[in-house]
Amino acid sequence: MWQLYQFPLCPFSRKVRLVLGEKGIAHELWRENPWEGRAEFFALNPAGRTPVLHDPDKGLSLCDSRAICEYLEETSERAPLIMGTAAARAEIRRLVALFDENFFADVTGPLLHEKMKKRLVLRQAPDSRVLRETMRLAHEHLDYIDYLVDNRPWLGGATLSLADLAAAAHLSVADYLGGIDWNGHEQARAWYSVFKSRPSFRPLLAERMEVIQPPSHYSDVNA
Amino acid sequence: MWQLYQFPLCPFSRKVRLVLGEKGIAHELWRENPWEGRAEFFALNPAGRTPVLHDPDKGLSLCDSRAICEYLEETSERAPLIMGTAAARAEIRRLVALFDENFFADVTGPLLHEKMKKRLVLRQAPDSRVLRETMRLAHEHLDYIDYLVDNRPWLGGATLSLADLAAAAHLSVADYLGGIDWNGHEQARAWYSVFKSRPSFRPLLAERMEVIQPPSHYSDVNA
Repeated sequence: MWQLYQFPLCPFSRKVRLVLGEKGIAHELWRENPWEGRAEFFALNPAGRTPVLHDPDKGLSLCDSRAICEYLEETSERAPLIMGTAAARAEIRRLVALFDENFFADVTGPLLHEKMKKRLVLRQAPDSRVLRETMRLAHEHLDYIDYLVDNRPWLGGATLSLADLAAAAHLSVADYLGGIDWNGHEQARAWYSVFKSRPSFRPLLAERMEVIQPPSHYSDVNA
Repeated sequence: MWQLYQFPLCPFSRKVRLVLGEKGIAHELWRENPWEGRAEFFALNPAGRTPVLHDPDKGLSLCDSRAICEYLEETSERAPLIMGTAAARAEIRRLVALFDENFFADVTGPLLHEKMKKRLVLRQAPDSRVLRETMRLAHEHLDYIDYLVDNRPWLGGATLSLADLAAAAHLSVADYLGGIDWNGHEQARAWYSVFKSRPSFRPLLAERMEVIQPPSHYSDVNA
């Protein structure tokens, strides 16, 4: 069976978990803290990053969350997530990159550093200036999600796609860490609220990282 | 005709230019300095990054270099660059991500900041401590390229693939900025030297960024 090396607040692992869930692909979760730099993990992935999707029977290790999602899309016929014309597929992949790169650089990455790594590893207090800037940039990204939801049924187009899963993965980590203020973003909130009820998303929302607690609205599907 | 918005030292634009070159796809180069934040450019790409591949006749704008490469791969039959089994394709995509994310974060990104942006935009001197760390990390990446070339004809497997193009794109920018010491990396040097002679690569190596000059070995195919 597939083994997914991940930790609960890794947004890239969450994206892959949502894909595995939507496609109904059996897998085990293996906990990996990439910041510990375990040699056996670097042997699986020289980049030293989660997620890694590993099949010990086949001796196959898939690394990089986008490469993993493309692999799952190519090998599973169920629940297509990168579909339509080449231009439609490019639009889905553009949005995945927007969340994995820009949203991560602006919001998820700094939040993970300030609120998870400083607490669990560095034993430092978070920098309130960085947190304020992160909140400001999160509002800009939520404005863009509002705009997309105003113009399309789902973020990437007419149907649920990898773009929605990537956005939900990052938003859920940011929301867990108290970095999302949904006020004034009714369209984004409504889209995310529908998403929170999906069977692929429920196990993620029920999970807790050690020490760090999410705000009360985090896993409430009616919030 | 396609218009590629790019600047000469953008490694992601170089990767797309190499793909366009290998596949023989006609295009015009449009100069864009993303750090200027031009409103018309943000209208094409809300992420504000190069490259953007734009077709004004079709009103089509493709953003994110990996999404662009996947699009070109799906729409052009010539010179396949992401090929083989699903596992082989995942390996190619893993390496593309390794260069676009890790090599960029360790080497190309800091070099562009210290040696291009500080000179052209911020009017500051480069930080020699950062440059030394960049050189140290570049050696680690070159060690990994040596290892790949020892075990495979090309970086991604038996044939030239997008992995080689991504690696060459980043290495060429780092080399232009004086950040690569090839000594002790004979395998990587030999692979890169073959690459420098390819017709898709020659126009890139002949091009110069304003103000900043590359070292003398940069475009020498025998160096």
